[in-house]
Amino acid sequence: SGPGPELRGRRIVVLGTGWGSASLVKALGEAAAYDRVTVVSPRNYFLFTPMLAGAAVGTVEYRSITEPVRKLNRHVDYLEATARRIDFGGRRVECESVVCEGTSCTIEAFEVPYDALVVSVGATTNTFGISGVREHCLFLKQVQDAEALRRAVGNALERANLPTATDDEKRRALSFVVVGAGPTGVEFCSELKDFLEAEASRYYPELLPFARVTLLEATSAVLGAFDESLRDVALAELRRERVTVSRRGRGGEAALSVVAPVDVRLGAPVRRVNETHVLVGDRDAVPYGLCVWAGGNAPVAVVSESIEALGHPQLDAQPACRGRLAVDAHLRVLG
Amino acid sequence: SGPGPELRGRRIVVLGTGWGSASLVKALGEAAAYDRVTVVSPRNYFLFTPMLAGAAVGTVEYRSITEPVRKLNRHVDYLEATARRIDFGGRRVECESVVCEGTSCTIEAFEVPYDALVVSVGATTNTFGISGVREHCLFLKQVQDAEALRRAVGNALERANLPTATDDEKRRALSFVVVGAGPTGVEFCSELKDFLEAEASRYYPELLPFARVTLLEATSAVLGAFDESLRDVALAELRRERVTVSRRGRGGEAALSVVAPVDVRLGAPVRRVNETHVLVGDRDAVPYGLCVWAGGNAPVAVVSESIEALGHPQLDAQPACRGRLAVDAHLRVLG
Repeated sequence: SGPGPELRGRRIVVLGTGWGSASLVKALGEAAAYDRVTVVSPRNYFLFTPMLAGAAVGTVEYRSITEPVRKLNRHVDYLEATARRIDFGGRRVECESVVCEGTSCTIEAFEVPYDALVVSVGATTNTFGISGVREHCLFLKQVQDAEALRRAVGNALERANLPTATDDEKRRALSFVVVGAGPTGVEFCSELKDFLEAEASRYYPELLPFARVTLLEATSAVLGAFDESLRDVALAELRRERVTVSRRGRGGEAALSVVAPVDVRLGAPVRRVNETHVLVGDRDAVPYGLCVWAGGNAPVAVVSESIEALGHPQLDAQPACRGRLAVDAHLRVLG
Repeated sequence: SGPGPELRGRRIVVLGTGWGSASLVKALGEAAAYDRVTVVSPRNYFLFTPMLAGAAVGTVEYRSITEPVRKLNRHVDYLEATARRIDFGGRRVECESVVCEGTSCTIEAFEVPYDALVVSVGATTNTFGISGVREHCLFLKQVQDAEALRRAVGNALERANLPTATDDEKRRALSFVVVGAGPTGVEFCSELKDFLEAEASRYYPELLPFARVTLLEATSAVLGAFDESLRDVALAELRRERVTVSRRGRGGEAALSVVAPVDVRLGAPVRRVNETHVLVGDRDAVPYGLCVWAGGNAPVAVVSESIEALGHPQLDAQPACRGRLAVDAHLRVLG
């Protein structure tokens, strides 16, 4: 187990703490004690992203879906920093770390030399430069996003519950718009529906009729990357109305709770988001109380720069790789 | 069980979701269905405050120490708002709620009429007007405080772990100063010591020698409100050095981890906090990387105003009540 003798004592630098990095760091096990393994990432834990949508509505706790990198392997060193540039010739990574003392922050820059480098930095949220997305939408990529989203869902319900709220205001506050029907968007819509059915129906029964979830997707299908049979099941499930019987009120008489189907709109490209509406296509304006952007991923800066720096064989592969680093059959970066 | 017939159908308004309010709301049980019970509070859950210090270092999860008010009693209505003024003559509470839509927020004001009012709003953090406390210190009163504190402790360790950090910078980053040796301050010091012993010694062994916890207390004792025998035990425990044996490094050789005693300074009144130091008494300046303020409690505005408004019998009792509402033997507010 562990790396062969030719790797012993070498400086192995791993960029990122996502799926690839976490698997590698864990798999290295005790072998990491014989080398100098350094992980560089702005986040000092692995995040089990498929359950992030659940965390955003409280189904699961953040701690249950995160694992500190130092726990994955106690023999690795970890630096809380962002890799800015890879100097392939000089075999070192230029890093930056935001260091705050009291209320003032500075950026510390430093270099980490390597004998072997693993690039596993993942992707960032892609807003496609659409105006208003950064300013008005919530995201679902990191724990902080899920925390903000959970708080926002709670606030929306409390806002709608105020005695001053008119029916129109309730409807507006409880208009949840999700953009992007990839795994993240579909998962969040389903979690939100579950939440409305299981929690909101119990604790905010009067508000349930005002709640509405809308899913906007630019292409003609949900879960475009999946098999058609799975897409069909997902779409049918989203569009299903859910009715449950609950007992409540004085004396506990039975009442029906109805959670409306998700309003799935396909072929609905978002053009702009303003303070109150998501503008779709040429004419539609969808009002929102809370808008979640799950529109897609974009490469992080260090990857884009590396592709440029690596030149010829790497650039040639880009039409197929679309912003990702092209690798050979042994996962070695081309160039 | 439940209130007597003379209370049935009355509008009962409860201010706050702390200990008093949560106990009452829970105790009302099914009886709440026969009245109109409305809870008004900026926080829609009860918080088990004694474990907040533990949550701040990750010993316990926030969800485990909170309970939504609607779960305490599904028959009560809840309004997320702050009580601003009590109109005792008109029997109504003036409330305010911050309502945000998109990125802009407004304040909604409304009144809640009552037949019976329960004031259980608790207290707020007292900075005694000491300059720099609000700007530079962290607190330990609400879940958000514990979240910020947990993040700050993690950041301090990661900051000290950067390759650019000098020994002086490590020492500075890991200087934890706690102000106030009441239950909150003492509890947090102990939790921090436990954290250093159990977690930091394992994951940041090289940094442990740089970590230092200082507890500043203006009076001459820790836990001043407690029995002397308990105070002595607490002080001895804080001042105890902790040594543990751990296995680590290449091959897992045994190593001693030493967590320094808490530097407890009694008779140390804080005069000012600036960006880098806590100024104590006339001469001392204690450098800090992270400063936690647990200096005491102050009455919230609605209570202070009510005391003024109630006048004579209430004001007379104030020397003994020190900002709290004076009540009779049946917990009825005087005046």
